[in-house]
Amino acid sequence: MDSHFERELGSLREKILTMGGHAEAAANRSVQSLVQRNSDLALQVKQSDEIIDKLEVDIEDCVVQQLTKAPLATDLRLVTAAIKISHDLERIGDEATQIAKRAMELCREPAIEIRFNLTQMTGLSFDMLKAALDSFANRDPAAARAVIPRDKEVDALNKTFHDLLARQMVEHPDTIKRCLHWMVVSKSIERIADHATNIAENVVYLYEGRDIRHTGIKSGGAKGD
Amino acid sequence: MDSHFERELGSLREKILTMGGHAEAAANRSVQSLVQRNSDLALQVKQSDEIIDKLEVDIEDCVVQQLTKAPLATDLRLVTAAIKISHDLERIGDEATQIAKRAMELCREPAIEIRFNLTQMTGLSFDMLKAALDSFANRDPAAARAVIPRDKEVDALNKTFHDLLARQMVEHPDTIKRCLHWMVVSKSIERIADHATNIAENVVYLYEGRDIRHTGIKSGGAKGD
Repeated sequence: MDSHFERELGSLREKILTMGGHAEAAANRSVQSLVQRNSDLALQVKQSDEIIDKLEVDIEDCVVQQLTKAPLATDLRLVTAAIKISHDLERIGDEATQIAKRAMELCREPAIEIRFNLTQMTGLSFDMLKAALDSFANRDPAAARAVIPRDKEVDALNKTFHDLLARQMVEHPDTIKRCLHWMVVSKSIERIADHATNIAENVVYLYEGRDIRHTGIKSGGAKGD
Repeated sequence: MDSHFERELGSLREKILTMGGHAEAAANRSVQSLVQRNSDLALQVKQSDEIIDKLEVDIEDCVVQQLTKAPLATDLRLVTAAIKISHDLERIGDEATQIAKRAMELCREPAIEIRFNLTQMTGLSFDMLKAALDSFANRDPAAARAVIPRDKEVDALNKTFHDLLARQMVEHPDTIKRCLHWMVVSKSIERIADHATNIAENVVYLYEGRDIRHTGIKSGGAKGD
């Protein structure tokens, strides 16, 4: 392969991984701001989100330039996968921003106590994101495939938390506003897992050439519902 | 331009418009199922969503095949815009499915009365979708630009409805479950407007070659937050 073109593909991969690092950091920081009730951390998430947005535009420019010279089928797949992976990362930045916003609202109100293991849920969701990005970095479709079924676990935890919050609202109507913020947080964490699943599916597509979306091979609802 | 390639680009455009038609129909039907309390209509939305999902995969296959021969910059933009527009349409199908699911839940419960003009909100959101698709069909970036600021109106209506529902929950805790379904419906209608905005931005990008995302030219929050 033309070595100049090869270098450009390498730089595209690198940009996606940089974007992935920022998305991961934003997601982690958003949950930290929530758990530590720390508005300053929440503000930092907003700044990361702006960097993530710029990287998405940058990656697409890079893709359009490279399309003129992509010579092989796998490279073409990298180019289309790059658009989709960067879009999922951009959405993860949006979800982190959403969590941070709700964290700022929740900082202003007294805490409410709900018996739910948030750390387990966020740990699972963010591990999926890390594993999906690692599978891209290591060109490892088997590792990517292992990410996909875990989405169902996060869905189930989101449902459990949602039901607990709905019950709390009925029993303590004075906490409704706060419970609604928590529901949005829970949904955002669940969506981060959806996007991680999408990224993993794209890694499978990229290195196995098989499109496994909408086929029933994956766990249900990976696109977020 | 090579007339064979031109025909293929034409078929790509046609596929996107077909997918757009299905997404519009699914969105309309989902709200009809809700307003008319009709579970059969809600079931039809699920079927449309499957067709929409298949079309997305089909469009991407078509794109990857065409990437090998795209000779001009505008054609390359059509090819990248096609991926993104079809993804937004696929998400609209998901939102319609979500609305239909909530409609089925709400059919089983007594109706609740809330003084909110849902028809106005859905009308606005679905008009945006129609206008965005028309701007693509007519290669009309000016019409696409006109779609973008309307997103703010839908955001405001979603906020109004959300606040009314939150108040209803506090005053009538027995309606909390139903109010939560309505909140999801409202958010889904708002997201359809976000996706319509994304499509319009892609039409501007396609025909003006300017990427107006994340620049502050557009209305805020078009990506959905």
